[in-house]
Amino acid sequence: MIHKPGKPHDGRLAWVSDHTQAAVFDQPLPLTLGGVLPAVVCGYETWGTLNVAGDNAVLICHALSGDAHAARHGVDDAPGWWDALIGPGKAIDTDRFFVVCSNVLGGCRGTTGPGSLNPVTGLPWGADFPAITLADMVAVQHRLMQRLGIGRWRAVVGGSLGGHQALNWATAHPDCVGHCVALATSPRLTSQALAFDVIGRNAIQTDPQFHGGQYYDQPKVAQPDTGLAIARMLGHITYLSSEAMEAKFDVDRNRPRDIATAFEKRFSVGSYLAHQGEKFTQRFDANSYVAITLAMDRFDMGRGREALAQALSPAGVAGGVESFLVVSFSTDWLFPPRQSRDVVNALAHLNHPVTYAEITSPGGHDAFLLPPEIAQYGPLIAAKLGRVTRDPPRLRPTDTPVLELIPAGASVLDLGCGSGRLLAELRRRGHERLVGVEVAQPKIIAAAARGLDVIDYDLNRGLPAFADDQFDVVVLSATLQSVDELVHLFREMLRVGRRVVISFANFAHKALREDYAKNGRSPRSDRAGGAYDHPWHSTPNRRFPSIVDVLSLVEECRATLHEAVYLDSVSGRRVAAEDDPNLNADLAVVVVSE
Amino acid sequence: MIHKPGKPHDGRLAWVSDHTQAAVFDQPLPLTLGGVLPAVVCGYETWGTLNVAGDNAVLICHALSGDAHAARHGVDDAPGWWDALIGPGKAIDTDRFFVVCSNVLGGCRGTTGPGSLNPVTGLPWGADFPAITLADMVAVQHRLMQRLGIGRWRAVVGGSLGGHQALNWATAHPDCVGHCVALATSPRLTSQALAFDVIGRNAIQTDPQFHGGQYYDQPKVAQPDTGLAIARMLGHITYLSSEAMEAKFDVDRNRPRDIATAFEKRFSVGSYLAHQGEKFTQRFDANSYVAITLAMDRFDMGRGREALAQALSPAGVAGGVESFLVVSFSTDWLFPPRQSRDVVNALAHLNHPVTYAEITSPGGHDAFLLPPEIAQYGPLIAAKLGRVTRDPPRLRPTDTPVLELIPAGASVLDLGCGSGRLLAELRRRGHERLVGVEVAQPKIIAAAARGLDVIDYDLNRGLPAFADDQFDVVVLSATLQSVDELVHLFREMLRVGRRVVISFANFAHKALREDYAKNGRSPRSDRAGGAYDHPWHSTPNRRFPSIVDVLSLVEECRATLHEAVYLDSVSGRRVAAEDDPNLNADLAVVVVSE
Repeated sequence: MIHKPGKPHDGRLAWVSDHTQAAVFDQPLPLTLGGVLPAVVCGYETWGTLNVAGDNAVLICHALSGDAHAARHGVDDAPGWWDALIGPGKAIDTDRFFVVCSNVLGGCRGTTGPGSLNPVTGLPWGADFPAITLADMVAVQHRLMQRLGIGRWRAVVGGSLGGHQALNWATAHPDCVGHCVALATSPRLTSQALAFDVIGRNAIQTDPQFHGGQYYDQPKVAQPDTGLAIARMLGHITYLSSEAMEAKFDVDRNRPRDIATAFEKRFSVGSYLAHQGEKFTQRFDANSYVAITLAMDRFDMGRGREALAQALSPAGVAGGVESFLVVSFSTDWLFPPRQSRDVVNALAHLNHPVTYAEITSPGGHDAFLLPPEIAQYGPLIAAKLGRVTRDPPRLRPTDTPVLELIPAGASVLDLGCGSGRLLAELRRRGHERLVGVEVAQPKIIAAAARGLDVIDYDLNRGLPAFADDQFDVVVLSATLQSVDELVHLFREMLRVGRRVVISFANFAHKALREDYAKNGRSPRSDRAGGAYDHPWHSTPNRRFPSIVDVLSLVEECRATLHEAVYLDSVSGRRVAAEDDPNLNADLAVVVVSE
Repeated sequence: MIHKPGKPHDGRLAWVSDHTQAAVFDQPLPLTLGGVLPAVVCGYETWGTLNVAGDNAVLICHALSGDAHAARHGVDDAPGWWDALIGPGKAIDTDRFFVVCSNVLGGCRGTTGPGSLNPVTGLPWGADFPAITLADMVAVQHRLMQRLGIGRWRAVVGGSLGGHQALNWATAHPDCVGHCVALATSPRLTSQALAFDVIGRNAIQTDPQFHGGQYYDQPKVAQPDTGLAIARMLGHITYLSSEAMEAKFDVDRNRPRDIATAFEKRFSVGSYLAHQGEKFTQRFDANSYVAITLAMDRFDMGRGREALAQALSPAGVAGGVESFLVVSFSTDWLFPPRQSRDVVNALAHLNHPVTYAEITSPGGHDAFLLPPEIAQYGPLIAAKLGRVTRDPPRLRPTDTPVLELIPAGASVLDLGCGSGRLLAELRRRGHERLVGVEVAQPKIIAAAARGLDVIDYDLNRGLPAFADDQFDVVVLSATLQSVDELVHLFREMLRVGRRVVISFANFAHKALREDYAKNGRSPRSDRAGGAYDHPWHSTPNRRFPSIVDVLSLVEECRATLHEAVYLDSVSGRRVAAEDDPNLNADLAVVVVSE
């Protein structure tokens, strides 16, 4: 009596692609909130080939209104919603990986949902469909994984609600997840996002054609499409940034598209919303919308870092999740970057390997689906899947002394890690626990493409992501001059690292002093790796310390100075402590601790 | 046959305060979009006393769901929505001013709207109520003004839709407006805000109880309250910032209030929205909601600065609007600050006196109604109404030479004007066209409290608000060291001013040079008005130029140097050009032009 995808019991459930396959599970599925589904059908699609070891599989998790058709299966196939990411030679390379995408539990695109037949009654579940959670969605995917002979996903990848699924996989089945890739997502919805969902459901459930969810015996025109369309219109606004809407609708604001609709179409944005809303009712089920948004609204990894760290800690078990990749988008106000930062901070605190990038984009929440943004974050996913840059790092003059001052095998946090030259060299030398922090997006992407863990992070915020004494060594290399809240950062480094290694250019080198004293110009020098080779009016530097200045700060902060190396970058020679390094050295490296 | 406020024809229209008076206008009111209202009733309240000259009146314009009861009339009266702003001794001082607030046309709180009786049919207008605009709302207020014997408003003050009314007053009846005070408003809605309105109206108009707007003969339970409540819920989200919602609902997200409601109440935010939505239907009419939001959505002063400047230009006629005060709120995403900046930039371009402050607030759009924010912007309104600080400005060492270099009567733009010390002195000397630009909020408020026109503005953006050669003199006094995009600003100053006067501290003064050369420390000095008296790691300075550096920049930009004054700030003496001012002067003032 179980409904098979592709053989719908009525028109509403015919929304299945030609490529959708069905896995039928006859064992009852116990649900998190207490209900039981007597049996489950899971609709899914696959790309590529599972290898003999069964270890090249990647799971794609779709968002609220998505489906299993993530990518086209050939040139004649209908477009998929993530074609720019998934395919032969693409970031998720179907020539190398066996890619799986299944429709979510509760949906209406091939997997059991409120429109499926209840085997007990032989009628559609409707309002009797039991309450489900993200964990239940993942439990169905877990059954599918076993059915397909996959022991462990190389990666679980999803955006938005798909990101919630990826995070649930990582914590509920850490042994089954290689890399967890969570895009444009959050540990739980903001109260604002939750409120939008509430209103969408209110629109559906107060539609007089909703009949408490028992509307499947009605003809299409007597179903709750008005409420569903309004919910969808509302969703559409939240998926776009205000800037994107301005670009799309401001030019012809009073010239709506001439469409047939029961909704208002006075303004161009109104005709767009009416069209989107009505189109959606042709492919989606109101009960599914209610069931899935409720599952999303219930998803809750806790409030505050401690709760979040506790929720994420199962990912760290032996044989658990290898690493996380978290990506947010600057104009996403539905799943704002601060929520991704919360996840990243909790993971960093737990010593979980994690890479984080906040992609600058005008696209709002939908950015994770857009080709230009996929071109930005795609390489980060490819790197997690093993496609890494192997070119040797080009070291800078201070890098050698910095490297010498780091004990063999030490765990290292590199603040302002750039494209990862220092970390790549440390990895080459066998260091294992290495984390970089960087704020420039191209550098983050370059470092991540090397397979390094790098976190998008503004050093002026301090180091709240990291625990006391979390690293053997914290490095601040050639970065000090661009930090605003330097004293605060200095104290934070001493808190987080057992040792702190700081390399910096010496602003009191004689070349600069002479220039200034003689010429009375803001001094400039091509020494010190070019740190001071900028015109006064447009230098990126904000701070101009000498060696003596930095040593004084060490004293002021009551830190202990362990070592100091002074360099002449032109000759490459060291300057002895008795040779007035503040005058004769243009670079310095100091090692301090609390 | 005209409906009188306080004597409703049915329960729906009994929403009138005890203090609401009614002005009945029997002349037909021609409407902007072609219709005519045969007659109009205007409900309004007043506070204070109109003086004999009839020139102490202030008009308050309310927002979408507001009403004429802006403030309580006594201790026993019901609270008003702007009590913190309006009352005896408050920023809008009812001991000094005759304050008027009227209900808007199209509403349901005492002024003619869709629920009023159509005198032709004797039935409520309902769906036949003609389409109205902001200009029509203002036309009714204009009749009221004449009826009350007021020749010109001292100020027209409004937030949100009330701000639209204030802007319409300023352009449609410039001779009737002293000061235009526009808070949390815009030249037209963003496409995003427009989209929210569309969805709200769709919820109302697809409510099966709406009956095309002809529902007044139905009992309350058969009226379109479900749609109206959903529209209101949606509005509520847009009035709050995401941060404010988080603060309000995140702690007890899963503990909803136990209320009786037909709407979802699973989450605390849901029960709140349900309560707000249902409460609203007790005091508001669905047809009014549609009519007023449509008027707001049609309000459009044009796209782009040129169109906006053209729309605002009528305010500048002889005897027109004396000045504008524009205020926005940092977390207002419904009427974002950039829209207020557009208005301000257009006004500044037109040489209209305008003060602008962007108030830092977590409160979102509703911030304009909150007491802490009113405490911030209230003094700006009080200053426009004549309550200005009269303490003499305390001049700084360079101010005297700067003042001497400004020709008598010149128009002056002071960039980084601080609390307005220089501008206040210039005003004392009889200069008339004076504009300040400042980024620090307390300083903006202090300068505005002096009755100066000051614009909240980040100099790193250049000077797009201002036209070529708009000012006789542009001053950059003791500000240069904190500007990031200095070369860009320099060119912009040369474009906007016929002369540019720059005062700055000399970083190559011998005290600093000696310190640096001898001690090898980032130099520090208590000279030059304290500009260089900061530790290297936390100085607010970003740029450290010498006199020679600045003169070189003048050359690089191919600007003409007209005068240069060099000072020793300790002795107060001038340093002659032949006495090596780059070594001996700690302050300098230069006059340059393109």
